[in-house]
Amino acid sequence: MTNKIKVGLLGFGVVAGGTYDVLKRNADEITRRAGSNIEVVRIATRTPSKAIGHVDEHIPVTDNMEDVINDPNVDVVVELIGGTTTAKDIVIKAIENGKHVVTANKALLAHYGNEIFALAAEKKVIVAFEAAVAGGIPIIKTMREGLTGNRILWLAGIINGTTNFILSEMYKKGLAYEQVLSEAQRLGYAEADPTFDVEGIDAGHKLSILAAIAFGIPVNFKHVYTEGIREIQEKDISYARRLGYRIKLLGITKHREEGIEMRVHPTLVSQQQLLASVDGAMNAVVVDGDAVGQTLFYGQGAGSEPTASAVVADLVDVARMLNANPEHRVPALAFQARSLRDINLLPMQEVISSYYLRFTVVDRPGVLSEVTEILAKGRISVKSMLQDEEHDGQATIIILTHRAKEGAANEAIKDIESLSCVNSKVVRIRMENFV
Amino acid sequence: MTNKIKVGLLGFGVVAGGTYDVLKRNADEITRRAGSNIEVVRIATRTPSKAIGHVDEHIPVTDNMEDVINDPNVDVVVELIGGTTTAKDIVIKAIENGKHVVTANKALLAHYGNEIFALAAEKKVIVAFEAAVAGGIPIIKTMREGLTGNRILWLAGIINGTTNFILSEMYKKGLAYEQVLSEAQRLGYAEADPTFDVEGIDAGHKLSILAAIAFGIPVNFKHVYTEGIREIQEKDISYARRLGYRIKLLGITKHREEGIEMRVHPTLVSQQQLLASVDGAMNAVVVDGDAVGQTLFYGQGAGSEPTASAVVADLVDVARMLNANPEHRVPALAFQARSLRDINLLPMQEVISSYYLRFTVVDRPGVLSEVTEILAKGRISVKSMLQDEEHDGQATIIILTHRAKEGAANEAIKDIESLSCVNSKVVRIRMENFV
Repeated sequence: MTNKIKVGLLGFGVVAGGTYDVLKRNADEITRRAGSNIEVVRIATRTPSKAIGHVDEHIPVTDNMEDVINDPNVDVVVELIGGTTTAKDIVIKAIENGKHVVTANKALLAHYGNEIFALAAEKKVIVAFEAAVAGGIPIIKTMREGLTGNRILWLAGIINGTTNFILSEMYKKGLAYEQVLSEAQRLGYAEADPTFDVEGIDAGHKLSILAAIAFGIPVNFKHVYTEGIREIQEKDISYARRLGYRIKLLGITKHREEGIEMRVHPTLVSQQQLLASVDGAMNAVVVDGDAVGQTLFYGQGAGSEPTASAVVADLVDVARMLNANPEHRVPALAFQARSLRDINLLPMQEVISSYYLRFTVVDRPGVLSEVTEILAKGRISVKSMLQDEEHDGQATIIILTHRAKEGAANEAIKDIESLSCVNSKVVRIRMENFV
Repeated sequence: MTNKIKVGLLGFGVVAGGTYDVLKRNADEITRRAGSNIEVVRIATRTPSKAIGHVDEHIPVTDNMEDVINDPNVDVVVELIGGTTTAKDIVIKAIENGKHVVTANKALLAHYGNEIFALAAEKKVIVAFEAAVAGGIPIIKTMREGLTGNRILWLAGIINGTTNFILSEMYKKGLAYEQVLSEAQRLGYAEADPTFDVEGIDAGHKLSILAAIAFGIPVNFKHVYTEGIREIQEKDISYARRLGYRIKLLGITKHREEGIEMRVHPTLVSQQQLLASVDGAMNAVVVDGDAVGQTLFYGQGAGSEPTASAVVADLVDVARMLNANPEHRVPALAFQARSLRDINLLPMQEVISSYYLRFTVVDRPGVLSEVTEILAKGRISVKSMLQDEEHDGQATIIILTHRAKEGAANEAIKDIESLSCVNSKVVRIRMENFV
């Protein structure tokens, strides 16, 4: 175990910083999964000072990209420069030097993907790009490896967080596009020049990659129809709402008998659809396959660590490839067999949850205080309470609690049931809030 | 290209039939992705007659499982017998014979997974089991390969379709558990003996596998707390609804500092959560990773072809491993580079969509008929219409159309704008219904 995969980082913006942090913070888990340590050994960025303040002292930081791609010590280059000029040159050179490449650069792949993939195949290196589409959602892996039994019929996605944030705010607050854009810029959800996002170009880049993977065609960005959200008016959002719809900027690609559609445009989506409920800067992609039917994949589409999550997954893929016997590339249980651990498995008594409690009481003064006293004794705090169905001098009580240990809840339930004013069993259903 | 991966099928129920059908129907796409043909060469089932009526004549069907696992011609055995007795023996023997194994058998893995995986590692074969959890949703691949950069914090899922169907029907129709169960049995959503599903045991099997993969622990089914839905009463569903919650049977596993929780039980989930909207027999899993945040994966959890989708994906994984240079195991664009095709890319004129149209008219008789005449001429049928905001003799018209070609819509919009009674541009937003 534990040979070392040596990573060269190109660029040191938020995603690179996040990648560095995740690799360091989760080094133990990542090594247990990958079968080798994945370590950043060299960084090139136009503003080295930012990186120098962030990373361990022993890691050399340079402002010369060539230093990284020519370093014989580097196994994998992570390109996080962005854009299509320097990034293209440097990725091509890295591949020519026999480096594997991980990139988050959708514009690069939308424009030069075919050329880059062909060169990588020739040089027998991997070019991995999970982070290029929908950030933390592993949609590339899902399409490329998870749904391989299917003829993909179509795919539709919210694949630009900025525009989804803007449309969500317009919907929630009834504000005009321009107002919400300013707010989004202030909050860092939109760039100073928001053109790429709001005109649908960024979504178009991603869609061209997804369409290629879905249908087995070359990447073809220039054929993608793009229409942005600048013209969307509040009144259309409001009419759509009255009719039962939300307006979302979708990337859509369909394989019809006559050919393939590729288009990005604002779209009315029925409020019945899960896609309509995807709000804020979140991303989601719906894929329809002839065998699997409709599947949906949801998560954060941008941001430092969500994107880093995808970059690191690509690095683990490369590490596993460099490491393993082919049949053991991915360990059956995700972690290398030797590194499985017997972590303490908690008995149900120790589980923490919130609770819904229902029981019937005799409707006389002091009943509630007897019940709440029991809960207080068990340190179970009440979130809300409902009293219902009073007849024959009986009342139904429903209590929602805050989080407490199962053992304490069991005790409290037993005590409540033994109260003379309580004349039913306590129905208990657990409650989770996922926050 | 195109060496051949030879598959032996064990069992011939609905999933095996679906697997056979998908492999045959999508042979072209699958070969283009896998880099080799994947062919069923032998089938063993207790009732050969069913298989014989279904599959191509040249494929030998036997009632002796040993025939398949001892066939030197078979590369991969697909175990779809179910249960934990014969299935265990036969999987162990297949591995000992050096066969790769694909299985959908969660009970088998929940009980004997550790033993089976250890033997597979020793014999250098793959045991793949995407179909064992959440059917068509590639959640095993996602956890094992897509989220490898994360420390998984918790995971919660609707991973049993039968119970989700029952709870959804109780919610929608206000019926009692027993009534809905009978209906579910009649529709084939529940077995004659529904114990495994309604008691949460099936979900527990799946949860023990997911927890192992999430946290790097051995599979430990006997530690999973399971509580089913038999006791759930209509009135609790109805109180939960009043309080803003849905009741779902969830499998939940959390990594707390003190240890790991693993539990299956009915759970109140806020209606704000996407998970609450997962209805009918659908499955969904929410995973929270420290880098990626919350992600959700949704799709069909059972059924012939959704499950087959997962089985075939595993077969493609095996094929790619047997085939490829390691760095080229998964082609960059999902399909083998040589098999990319230049499929006709449709110009926007040819795209088919529904439309939301908004414009202002002079409010006088005959206006609507002039507009609808134009739409009829373009063979665009109207789905619904709304007239609003009449003042100053003006009215706003909103029309939702059925599906039509973009070209026809463009023509109609031009013609509507040229009507003397129309005194605004036509705002057009496309509409998709994903059905």
